[in-house]
Amino acid sequence: MISGKQNILITNDDGIDAPGIRALYKALLKCDYRIFVVAPASEMSAVGHAITLSDPLRVKEVNLDKKIKAYRVNGTPADCVKIAYWALLDIKPDLIISGINTGSNTGINMLYSGTVSAATEGSILGIPSFAISLATYSDPDFSFAADFSCRIAEIILKNRMPESVFLNINVPNLPKEKIKGVKVTRQGRAIFVEKYEKRYDPRGNTYYWLSGQKIDKENETDIDEGAVQNGYVSVTPVHFDLTHHNSIDMLEKWNIKI
Amino acid sequence: MISGKQNILITNDDGIDAPGIRALYKALLKCDYRIFVVAPASEMSAVGHAITLSDPLRVKEVNLDKKIKAYRVNGTPADCVKIAYWALLDIKPDLIISGINTGSNTGINMLYSGTVSAATEGSILGIPSFAISLATYSDPDFSFAADFSCRIAEIILKNRMPESVFLNINVPNLPKEKIKGVKVTRQGRAIFVEKYEKRYDPRGNTYYWLSGQKIDKENETDIDEGAVQNGYVSVTPVHFDLTHHNSIDMLEKWNIKI
Repeated sequence: MISGKQNILITNDDGIDAPGIRALYKALLKCDYRIFVVAPASEMSAVGHAITLSDPLRVKEVNLDKKIKAYRVNGTPADCVKIAYWALLDIKPDLIISGINTGSNTGINMLYSGTVSAATEGSILGIPSFAISLATYSDPDFSFAADFSCRIAEIILKNRMPESVFLNINVPNLPKEKIKGVKVTRQGRAIFVEKYEKRYDPRGNTYYWLSGQKIDKENETDIDEGAVQNGYVSVTPVHFDLTHHNSIDMLEKWNIKI
Repeated sequence: MISGKQNILITNDDGIDAPGIRALYKALLKCDYRIFVVAPASEMSAVGHAITLSDPLRVKEVNLDKKIKAYRVNGTPADCVKIAYWALLDIKPDLIISGINTGSNTGINMLYSGTVSAATEGSILGIPSFAISLATYSDPDFSFAADFSCRIAEIILKNRMPESVFLNINVPNLPKEKIKGVKVTRQGRAIFVEKYEKRYDPRGNTYYWLSGQKIDKENETDIDEGAVQNGYVSVTPVHFDLTHHNSIDMLEKWNIKI
């Protein structure tokens, strides 16, 4: 084991062969980190924070780059972080990065995001973590987001992240010179109006296809989606304490009896 | 449509045929609500907040009770709430209940819970919601939890829940006379030490089975798990704003540049 270098675990939810994760580990190698990749075998979008309990996890060591130890796992992003930490790696990572996802993970979408769930899992394990996503599905240019990941890695490893807090980063799909800057943001609240298309199979059974559609535009640059829409990188601090502490007193007053 | 009655949508993650959901809708029928059941066709534990995007959702109307309109969906609990709201029901539910789950959903487990994700989804849609789980896997006795659901339904429908807040309820597997009372709690933080068992298939490929194991006991009765362990019903107010607002100032001071 080479001493001195810091260890970064990389995962994603688009799968180990996705161009976003490749751009990420290539950029980080140049920044002289020791890289471990443990990522899903296939695309895992909208898996939420799922873990695999009822099936075994198949794990295969693969060769991405001679400087990288890499494993392909037939599981979710959260599975990848857990099995990396508890079974596959012989070191504790100094940092976990999940991405670069194709498509933004802003607002309510964070709840459905496998990319974000991997960073949550890292944070649960007490490891500084961030998720990074590129806000496009067509013609993704990962170059800026990959370089920016190196910079964020350096900043996080130098400063201390508060315990149980990680970052959710969304990057506009623009060349560096067109990006206006960085905004620290909060999670947006825009709600999707969903459309379900009803169809019948040849045997007359009903099925539905989901086709989501956003309504409210949240254009303020202190909100994740608004920042990205306006050409800024969005950096949101995220935690996994779901307690709504402000409601505890109210509920005490309800005086619920059995 | 019969006027006057309030409409309750019920779902779960153990599947529409599970005894927990049956105990729930039977108790609620007795309390004179109009009940809709839209629930997964099969057991969906640890699916987290997943939604189905790449496959269609098959939906079949089923007959659970002549007073109940019920649909079986081959999707996740979150899918069930979404498709009920956007496609299947011709009314907006006054309340959504997810459960009664077999097995507690306390602490970190809330993040992996399909039961909780259904209540989250209800809350996103602006509908008062709660998730209810029974803290056992063996010999579940749903009778108290089912009656308690009626009481909570009544309380929530009478009082106003704050916007974007829902309740996560965990009930000890005890007869009513042995339950000590109700505690308003916060989400526990106990971390699992995970064990992955490594095996080889007949072709020499590696696979792992996950077998989780908790360490820290959180015994305080103001924490969800501790309350249940001590014989109390745990009621936790939950929100889905993942922003860690206290870290925003800190991140601003990092002065991140592109």
